Amino acid sequence: MARIVAKFGGTSVADIERIERAADKIAREVALGNEVAVVVSAMSGVTNQLVEYCNDISEGHDVREYDTVVSSGEQVTAGLMAMALQKRGINARSWMGWQVPILCSEAHGKARIESIDSAKMIERFKEKDVAVLAGFQGVTERERIATLGRGGSDTTAVALAAALNADRCDIYTDVDGVYTTDPRIVKKAQKIEKISYEGMLELASLGAKVLQTRSVEMAYKRDIPLQVLSSFDDAIGSDLPGTLVTREEDIMEKHVVNGIAYDKSEAKITLFDIPDSPGIAAKVLGPMSEANINVDMIVQNISADGKVTDFTFTVPKDDLDKAIEKLKADEAFKDAQIKANKDIVKISVVGIGMVSHAGVAQTMFATLAEKGINIQVISTSEIKVSVIIAKEYLELAVRSLHTAYGLDMEEVA
Amino acid sequence: MARIVAKFGGTSVADIERIERAADKIAREVALGNEVAVVVSAMSGVTNQLVEYCNDISEGHDVREYDTVVSSGEQVTAGLMAMALQKRGINARSWMGWQVPILCSEAHGKARIESIDSAKMIERFKEKDVAVLAGFQGVTERERIATLGRGGSDTTAVALAAALNADRCDIYTDVDGVYTTDPRIVKKAQKIEKISYEGMLELASLGAKVLQTRSVEMAYKRDIPLQVLSSFDDAIGSDLPGTLVTREEDIMEKHVVNGIAYDKSEAKITLFDIPDSPGIAAKVLGPMSEANINVDMIVQNISADGKVTDFTFTVPKDDLDKAIEKLKADEAFKDAQIKANKDIVKISVVGIGMVSHAGVAQTMFATLAEKGINIQVISTSEIKVSVIIAKEYLELAVRSLHTAYGLDMEEVA
Repeated sequence: MARIVAKFGGTSVADIERIERAADKIAREVALGNEVAVVVSAMSGVTNQLVEYCNDISEGHDVREYDTVVSSGEQVTAGLMAMALQKRGINARSWMGWQVPILCSEAHGKARIESIDSAKMIERFKEKDVAVLAGFQGVTERERIATLGRGGSDTTAVALAAALNADRCDIYTDVDGVYTTDPRIVKKAQKIEKISYEGMLELASLGAKVLQTRSVEMAYKRDIPLQVLSSFDDAIGSDLPGTLVTREEDIMEKHVVNGIAYDKSEAKITLFDIPDSPGIAAKVLGPMSEANINVDMIVQNISADGKVTDFTFTVPKDDLDKAIEKLKADEAFKDAQIKANKDIVKISVVGIGMVSHAGVAQTMFATLAEKGINIQVISTSEIKVSVIIAKEYLELAVRSLHTAYGLDMEEVA
Repeated sequence: MARIVAKFGGTSVADIERIERAADKIAREVALGNEVAVVVSAMSGVTNQLVEYCNDISEGHDVREYDTVVSSGEQVTAGLMAMALQKRGINARSWMGWQVPILCSEAHGKARIESIDSAKMIERFKEKDVAVLAGFQGVTERERIATLGRGGSDTTAVALAAALNADRCDIYTDVDGVYTTDPRIVKKAQKIEKISYEGMLELASLGAKVLQTRSVEMAYKRDIPLQVLSSFDDAIGSDLPGTLVTREEDIMEKHVVNGIAYDKSEAKITLFDIPDSPGIAAKVLGPMSEANINVDMIVQNISADGKVTDFTFTVPKDDLDKAIEKLKADEAFKDAQIKANKDIVKISVVGIGMVSHAGVAQTMFATLAEKGINIQVISTSEIKVSVIIAKEYLELAVRSLHTAYGLDMEEVA
């Protein structure tokens, strides 16, 4: 017997038929003797419609009212899922964030879960009761509904798993696991059976949008094994058919490189001929931080004469115009030449074993050089190497690296 | 300055444009210095969609989960309305039933409001705050969401008006008031400016579906003037453009007859040749009550020989088959001949002044006789006379009676 939290995303509860299929899976988990709590997203499309309503009224709407409106989608799915389980002879009831309660910070629209009172749910497990929790939402101390931001249902699921001291948190979605790279680009991409929290975090933050970064961080911190699996397959979570995200020491077979990720959402800004003085990075990044613009990669070149230097960094494409405006308005850069480039892509090699394998970065650089792909910016961490290259080389680079690191699926003769 | 509750029904908040128009009306009430609380229904079509989801999963769904699902529609509108008011520079916040709280009975799906804690709203009136309340819902002592049944937002509005000790409750809808009869049948139907609670109750219960009966009863009991008015006109509630439902003594000009109502939803059942013994009515109606079938009109004929009699009553058309089944299964009626007729209509003349005007019923019978319309069943109360006639005479009967009671609008030359 295990205690499991199972989360179903929007496409997995898109209509009544899919809600019924999801309920079938839960029924099989219950039949195995497991204690199960279910977390549901809104039916796909619903949240977008609700957000559109809010924006139609006013772009600058009150976030507390926004939360009231958009949280209703999960409320509907939770009630429907409880009904579908009851129809299968299973005791079930829905829980809204305020009923549990799931206490959240006052940061409406992107609130953080502060505590979950799971006592009542645990009490009901004794009566074989399945708890169906509306994801993405909680309640503030002022008794207003707060939402966790898009994709927040993953976070709800992991937080609930932690509060329930669950053995595993299954994230049912529309893909059957995490892949070594995007299967749309590389046909030989393979499903990863097990990956460490750190590896998953890098993959998630680099554009592999299977799990919300915050939910992986929380699972890591609370040591909850997370499984990404498909709601469209026949398998259930206890069959372990998906990708298990767990502690490094629980992974027997360790790949040096887990996967190749890419991210097309960034643009590059370079400041040429700016004074090479201490504190220049702060001078550049200060205005970005003030304008709430996320800066990702940062490279400062060594200047030949020690007087002027070049400074390169990346920002989300959507924020590019705002970023340039900010820099131009700054007295410090009045003489600087500013160049922006949207036609770039970030390619990353991610692997928990990298730190002890010096050759990993070298393989990346050599592979790209061999294909004639120019590297514009390099950034490294303990478990990843990222480069910026021209966008047109995206597919070629990802495929070549996938092969170079031995990630290609073996062809069946 | 007045304290007003304004309720907007589904068609009045059907889309963002209509929510904005409704907000404009509230803004004008606020500009007049009034304290305003708003009660909103779900956007039209939303509740039906949610009910359909529930029925798709299971006809016998858990009513607590049903309430969780269907109450979400009002939650969305309340948040959107609060935003629309804020956009107009008005302090506003949404309130869900559980936030107020509006304490309800445990009778999920058709709960009764037991109490409304209006202290916080009244406190906020001092800061010119408009309260936007999600209609149709409350919370039980077990902290589950409960709904009041279809049309329950009218009841929410009147209950809130009572709790706030409001001067008036405006019900904005898609018609501009209560009419002397259905304007689709009688072109010369007139809008009633003022009508008593009792008169409105009879009209409402007889098929004039402008106001939910329970909301009129509650307004009557709590002495809250109710106004039915259009959300599509330019006028606002304080212009008193609609039909005001109020105490009889507040109505200056008293019509003997307020209006002509009709109801096509019933079917007639007659039992022939049943033993004319005491308690026969109870024997017929007992099984109906057991089967939860509402019996409306009841007529027992005097038997010529004192041995057998005929017994006629009406039930909702939808329950007709079930009613007949029940009767046939009953030992007491094993020899009775049972006849049912769906092609009937109930026509009612309603007026608070009727009790003191003996001629009112006589006018009705004479008018119908003159047109060759046979009366099948008659039933009277202090303020109405109802008859059952063949359905084919519906329009002729309503038009003739409307003229006979002097209700026709005068033609403008």
